[in-house]
Amino acid sequence: MKNESANLMPDIETIRRAAQRIKPYINHTPVLTCKSLDRMVCAELFFKCENFQKVGAFKFRGASNAVFSLSDEEAKKGVATHSSGNHAQALSLAAKNRRIKAHIVIPRNASKVKVKAVEGYGGNIIFCEPTLKAREDTLAKVVAETGAKFIHPYNDYRIIAGQGTAALEFLEEVKNLDVIMAPVGGGGLLSGTALTFLNLSPDTKIIAAEPQGADDAYRSFYQGKLIPSVNPKTIADGLLTSLGDLTFPIIQRYVHQIVTVSEDAIISSMRHIWERMKIIIEPSAAVPFGAFLEDKIDLKGKKVGIILSGGNVDLENLPWLSMH
Amino acid sequence: MKNESANLMPDIETIRRAAQRIKPYINHTPVLTCKSLDRMVCAELFFKCENFQKVGAFKFRGASNAVFSLSDEEAKKGVATHSSGNHAQALSLAAKNRRIKAHIVIPRNASKVKVKAVEGYGGNIIFCEPTLKAREDTLAKVVAETGAKFIHPYNDYRIIAGQGTAALEFLEEVKNLDVIMAPVGGGGLLSGTALTFLNLSPDTKIIAAEPQGADDAYRSFYQGKLIPSVNPKTIADGLLTSLGDLTFPIIQRYVHQIVTVSEDAIISSMRHIWERMKIIIEPSAAVPFGAFLEDKIDLKGKKVGIILSGGNVDLENLPWLSMH
Repeated sequence: MKNESANLMPDIETIRRAAQRIKPYINHTPVLTCKSLDRMVCAELFFKCENFQKVGAFKFRGASNAVFSLSDEEAKKGVATHSSGNHAQALSLAAKNRRIKAHIVIPRNASKVKVKAVEGYGGNIIFCEPTLKAREDTLAKVVAETGAKFIHPYNDYRIIAGQGTAALEFLEEVKNLDVIMAPVGGGGLLSGTALTFLNLSPDTKIIAAEPQGADDAYRSFYQGKLIPSVNPKTIADGLLTSLGDLTFPIIQRYVHQIVTVSEDAIISSMRHIWERMKIIIEPSAAVPFGAFLEDKIDLKGKKVGIILSGGNVDLENLPWLSMH
Repeated sequence: MKNESANLMPDIETIRRAAQRIKPYINHTPVLTCKSLDRMVCAELFFKCENFQKVGAFKFRGASNAVFSLSDEEAKKGVATHSSGNHAQALSLAAKNRRIKAHIVIPRNASKVKVKAVEGYGGNIIFCEPTLKAREDTLAKVVAETGAKFIHPYNDYRIIAGQGTAALEFLEEVKNLDVIMAPVGGGGLLSGTALTFLNLSPDTKIIAAEPQGADDAYRSFYQGKLIPSVNPKTIADGLLTSLGDLTFPIIQRYVHQIVTVSEDAIISSMRHIWERMKIIIEPSAAVPFGAFLEDKIDLKGKKVGIILSGGNVDLENLPWLSMH
């Protein structure tokens, strides 16, 4: 089904058109700085706050671009996906904005909070058994019955182009970054970011950060072949997925380095950002700064951009509280 | 000791000079909006994010203005105060910026987190017994011994002028507010805000919000005389203090309305702002929006500015977790 969206790898003009297309719907998110975090790591950090994006994550950029890229004919039967995370919420709201249906296949054991959030954005929920096969079968059935277009969470060039618009805004605001960092899960944000930077800021080094407990991108990158995750386990639940066959080649070609980060460093990073910056980010967004805390990268004196990918957390369940 | 600082009630030029004086030291904080909170209360809300201010609260404005208003002669023996809250941290950092000493009298039973924060900003801590008399006696002793200038947390025109600079920035960014709201404890922020708005935006209604459990400003305002707090109790621990004899007359004359807010509404407001805006605010900052949630004010269709006063919370101790 993936080939439905497979036209051409996005170039910078595609990403610019995506930015124009989604502009009426998305938040232009701020770039924040924090002197005390700068001092802590001896670098000049710029945080692009996609935790302030609609639905609380950068995912809304890609989902909006995918939904508004459809022709009226393609769009009229709605869109569909399987996800219980930020993509499900993002696709639901993007579809609502286009006044079409979003069919969201969700495993029966997904948290009530997530199900409620998808419902809140108007998504039509179809429950399935919590196995990959059940998800895929249920989605195929939904698509066959409704004629909805499947929108993959990341392995889709329209999604990748949409995610690349965060980097576009970033570069309009901050010039001459020595390094840009993003977390990597399925690779949508990372490949979109890479495509934007290689065109508009080719001297900026592109570094991805990945949880040690879900290091398929790290292994794929350094072994030169796509190695899917097996039983990934990390608190950064937005990064459990494996790279796709569209995102991996972009990452392999244009990303300079991937570093892995321990769970302790992710939690510590998240807490530092909450305490010092007074903003709420989810564990996945904390992974790049976590790499600093673990001395996985030496960027002393550098000007570093970090994309804070999202801010959806369960406020009843903060990681530092369950550590006691 | 208060009369040391009692020259004239600040006019708008005094507040403008304060803004110039503290500009090199403070953060120009952003104004954020949130469509989903707007929809919830059917109003157009603008949040001035003093939780992003240095030391995490507006208090740094007043403390900086007081410290940098001193002559070199006055300044050289340092400054002193009794506080274990945001003013203690604010005065410590302001003094550090001027390279003078800050002597902070803190009750022995103050939380370690707060003591550490003051130490972190370079304050010289003097512990005392946890009674008002011990605090005052210890402070008097410190002042006598060191020659330091006492800087009151709010009952001081330099502090009031400094706090008024948040409103000045607010009005540069958002015009034609129908209403401006601030929380009220000692009244420094509220009276500074009132003095700025009455001069620059005289048609804007000034509304203060106060916890029901510490409603001395409410009672003083409506009974027309200064009534100090007796055993105030609220989670909004920045608002436990009583109005002062400098702040009360300004509030009485220029504020249009004071509303009280229940503890449940304060906690609910705090949680809504965390969840929807993805920013961290302390309970005191949540009081104005709490008034909306309790239908204490009818501002449907209005353009309302809210000053989010601070973001210092103990992340181990969130109010909605202790409610279970």
